[in-house]
Amino acid sequence: MTADDFGASYLQQRLSGEFALVDHIGVRVESADDTRLVLYAPLAGNANDKGTAFGGSLFSVSVLAGWAWLTRHLARESCAADVVIQESRMQYLIPVRGDFRAQLCLPAAEEVARFRRMLRRAARGRIGLRVEIRDGDDVATRFDGLYTAAMRPG
Amino acid sequence: MTADDFGASYLQQRLSGEFALVDHIGVRVESADDTRLVLYAPLAGNANDKGTAFGGSLFSVSVLAGWAWLTRHLARESCAADVVIQESRMQYLIPVRGDFRAQLCLPAAEEVARFRRMLRRAARGRIGLRVEIRDGDDVATRFDGLYTAAMRPG
Repeated sequence: MTADDFGASYLQQRLSGEFALVDHIGVRVESADDTRLVLYAPLAGNANDKGTAFGGSLFSVSVLAGWAWLTRHLARESCAADVVIQESRMQYLIPVRGDFRAQLCLPAAEEVARFRRMLRRAARGRIGLRVEIRDGDDVATRFDGLYTAAMRPG
Repeated sequence: MTADDFGASYLQQRLSGEFALVDHIGVRVESADDTRLVLYAPLAGNANDKGTAFGGSLFSVSVLAGWAWLTRHLARESCAADVVIQESRMQYLIPVRGDFRAQLCLPAAEEVARFRRMLRRAARGRIGLRVEIRDGDDVATRFDGLYTAAMRPG
């Protein structure tokens, strides 16, 4: 895989290069293609004294999964825009007791098309993205984030 | 100040001892008394490449401020209960460009009394807590968390 694929190694480089905390958390891009975006993190370094994952770590990996999906989408479209989180909701349903994976729930094609139109017309677009962390088959946390992409000036 | 005050040094020990990520983020308890709970964190180590604080770090310090306030409240009441976050909403209003402080907005006395009654009757209580991070006089992020405290068995 080369950087031109905008795949796992491309996103790993972006994440590690742009967020100081990424390497402390141990975030690793496990999958990044058109059908699937998954970030992995180890429990070690993210645990509390009960042996479950800290809510702030689960949130961080979730918010980064949404950022990574949207950043990859923009890079593939050769669209020079920066992505920031604007608002989010996080539900903690069951404790996470091991290494964990945050998986993006792919947005509907109409939502992506609407986002692209906003970005083209107003140089700024918003999109809602959902990320889930699972424990086996069960959803452990559900993150819903509203992201804004803004075209870089010039 | 002694540990009996359940003040800043007590909470610092609890936070550093119970959450592996706390020292990576650089969380420091700045104030912890009956009128004020403030956690501080440096921008360095929590910044992104734009020189603003990472949303996951801002969330982590906010969720810990709520946890710290409730943990202190329970400790002062000699109440052996564990606190976890159940659900949260986070609004990112303006970027944070320097070291930052997360301050708990004290809950209404009736809310605290209701929480204590639930905990006494059902060995489990819920309370909503708000935490703000400010940039000068402006609110930069607003966190609303629903926390659960559960009495330890035995």
